[in-house]
Amino acid sequence: MTEPRREPWLLTPGPLTTSRTVKEAMLRDWGSRDAEFIKLNARVRERLVELAGGQGTHVCVPLQGSGTFIVEAMLGTLVPPSGKVAILVNGAYGKRMVRICEYLRRACVALETAEDTPVAVATLDASLEADAAITHVVVVQCETTSGVLNPVEEIAAVTARHHRSLLVDAMSAFGALPLDAGRVPYDALVASSNKCLEGVPGVGFAIIRQTALEAARGNAHALSFDLHDQWVAMEKTGQWRFTPPTHVLAALDQALVEHAAEGGTAGRGARYAKNCRVLVDGLRALGFETLLPDALQAPIIVTVRMPADLKFNFETLYDRLARRGYVIYPGKLTVADSFRIGCIGRLGEGEMRGALENIKQILAEMGVTSCAPAGR
Amino acid sequence: MTEPRREPWLLTPGPLTTSRTVKEAMLRDWGSRDAEFIKLNARVRERLVELAGGQGTHVCVPLQGSGTFIVEAMLGTLVPPSGKVAILVNGAYGKRMVRICEYLRRACVALETAEDTPVAVATLDASLEADAAITHVVVVQCETTSGVLNPVEEIAAVTARHHRSLLVDAMSAFGALPLDAGRVPYDALVASSNKCLEGVPGVGFAIIRQTALEAARGNAHALSFDLHDQWVAMEKTGQWRFTPPTHVLAALDQALVEHAAEGGTAGRGARYAKNCRVLVDGLRALGFETLLPDALQAPIIVTVRMPADLKFNFETLYDRLARRGYVIYPGKLTVADSFRIGCIGRLGEGEMRGALENIKQILAEMGVTSCAPAGR
Repeated sequence: MTEPRREPWLLTPGPLTTSRTVKEAMLRDWGSRDAEFIKLNARVRERLVELAGGQGTHVCVPLQGSGTFIVEAMLGTLVPPSGKVAILVNGAYGKRMVRICEYLRRACVALETAEDTPVAVATLDASLEADAAITHVVVVQCETTSGVLNPVEEIAAVTARHHRSLLVDAMSAFGALPLDAGRVPYDALVASSNKCLEGVPGVGFAIIRQTALEAARGNAHALSFDLHDQWVAMEKTGQWRFTPPTHVLAALDQALVEHAAEGGTAGRGARYAKNCRVLVDGLRALGFETLLPDALQAPIIVTVRMPADLKFNFETLYDRLARRGYVIYPGKLTVADSFRIGCIGRLGEGEMRGALENIKQILAEMGVTSCAPAGR
Repeated sequence: MTEPRREPWLLTPGPLTTSRTVKEAMLRDWGSRDAEFIKLNARVRERLVELAGGQGTHVCVPLQGSGTFIVEAMLGTLVPPSGKVAILVNGAYGKRMVRICEYLRRACVALETAEDTPVAVATLDASLEADAAITHVVVVQCETTSGVLNPVEEIAAVTARHHRSLLVDAMSAFGALPLDAGRVPYDALVASSNKCLEGVPGVGFAIIRQTALEAARGNAHALSFDLHDQWVAMEKTGQWRFTPPTHVLAALDQALVEHAAEGGTAGRGARYAKNCRVLVDGLRALGFETLLPDALQAPIIVTVRMPADLKFNFETLYDRLARRGYVIYPGKLTVADSFRIGCIGRLGEGEMRGALENIKQILAEMGVTSCAPAGR
């Protein structure tokens, strides 16, 4: 039996495993209005715009809180009360944006596909053609509900052709999957510190076309979520309006250094792609069925269909894996019983193989003879 | 000349200096849906209710983000769209709540006194008598704009007598100045991780009377700020709805252990009172004039009137002090030119005396002969 590590590897959609050096960047206290922190903040914002390919067109507006906070702030700030949002939905995060629009009292229409299917470009095209009231389109780049990669570039092309504004939730993909503002026309993209950038959780950010942000004055539904106000104040003073999570930002600053050292988005994406390949191949070799065909699988998180074998028990697998140092994740699908294993964060092929080896051992302990899902 | 410390003491209203052990609690990664983190979260919430004296009547709802986020969430969740808030204002934080109510489209009336004067109990009494539409009263316990202590107990008594609901912004006082829910009737109190509790910034919390929270379903103006929804989900699963700042919470958990070890609110408050006494006496001995008389001064942050001597330059004092390891704070008063020096965070009499000694040296370097303010 493997000895438990004090700190398990997190094979989840986040919070993720981060490097020791990223965490050590939190071992000092910063005055948020002091010159040193102002420089750190400026450096982080500039680097994030570069990673988005938005130099000269887009600006970075960071915001305290979780990923959902910056999604809500983006919708509230950029969609005016008279606007209408077409929300492309194929999982929990798309659905959550519908719920946010209900809170915000912004008109919206959900264009929904199944959780194992990319969002529908043709449906969007027809909707934009038919409904002149739609002002904005919003799409999730990688829906971690299933792990599916959505065709953001095609969505962007259709949205641009209809002269509407595109907003992208790139939360779980930014820093590993490219989405260059110079090539893919979007007005805003949001992501957070703790996904593929491998910082710690506690801050999100929006990369917003400056002209769109300038036009967004007075839209927001909440003072704290007013990205226009946040941006104007930060441009003026270099400081946050309200106390920033200074340690989290120091960790993000270090994480961006390590991201660059790995070769930026290309290097980070290549490691995750390898992790994903090793994981999917290994799971299939054990007899598991993954939800998605390879062409639709983003290298972020893999959904696995629950085996039908009555000797298989997910709680047992979860607990024993956790005790051996690997935390996996429950499923979130509504259409099929499943669980998920992430392949992002500060981990590589060795950790993926370690997880697979331990899964194999636990399956044997449970006496599971087949990992085939029900209905096959 | 003193050698610069790598990390200065933060004599500010926050972010503050925290202990090494609080920061070291951030040196591991936590899965936010894992059993260990769920236990940590439950422990933190329970302890915060205890510190508020709210066992059996109040619950703790934590929220990602800065102090302003939890203030906005409290107002949005507890004041229904049909409600009206009387906001007691004597500084920037009271004014900010007026601005929040404008965003939320909640009716409000500002009952304003000067920044160096406590909020007016008699004015509130008359307003509640005259205006039956007022449903809620909100007050800032310690207004760090000036450092003034507001008479929350008297405000609570008047509000209760008129059968209205009291909300308290205890941001900069919670954990050092008592406000026992069993003795002072309030429906909600908000504070954050990084003030007198000496955690790191990134999370706030509300202590809310359970019956008031139960009645608040459907009020909130933002999904992320819906404290009723946050509470229901957390009670059900022990988990946060959206990714929590796990490292910040681990630091808060450790900070609460250290707070208890210091003797809880009484012990922490006594250290700060000593810091404040040493600071005020020392400043006066140097010839400075503090804004507030001792009776109105909360032991949190001290406002100092700007000396009239033309040789005195605040930027020079700030920069030289920072280089010698002490970060102070600009003024925020609208009525008088001033600066501020905080006395909270992981620091004691030695650091206060160190700051004073360095201020004395820098005054001599500048050739300042009198620290008396203008108009005297």
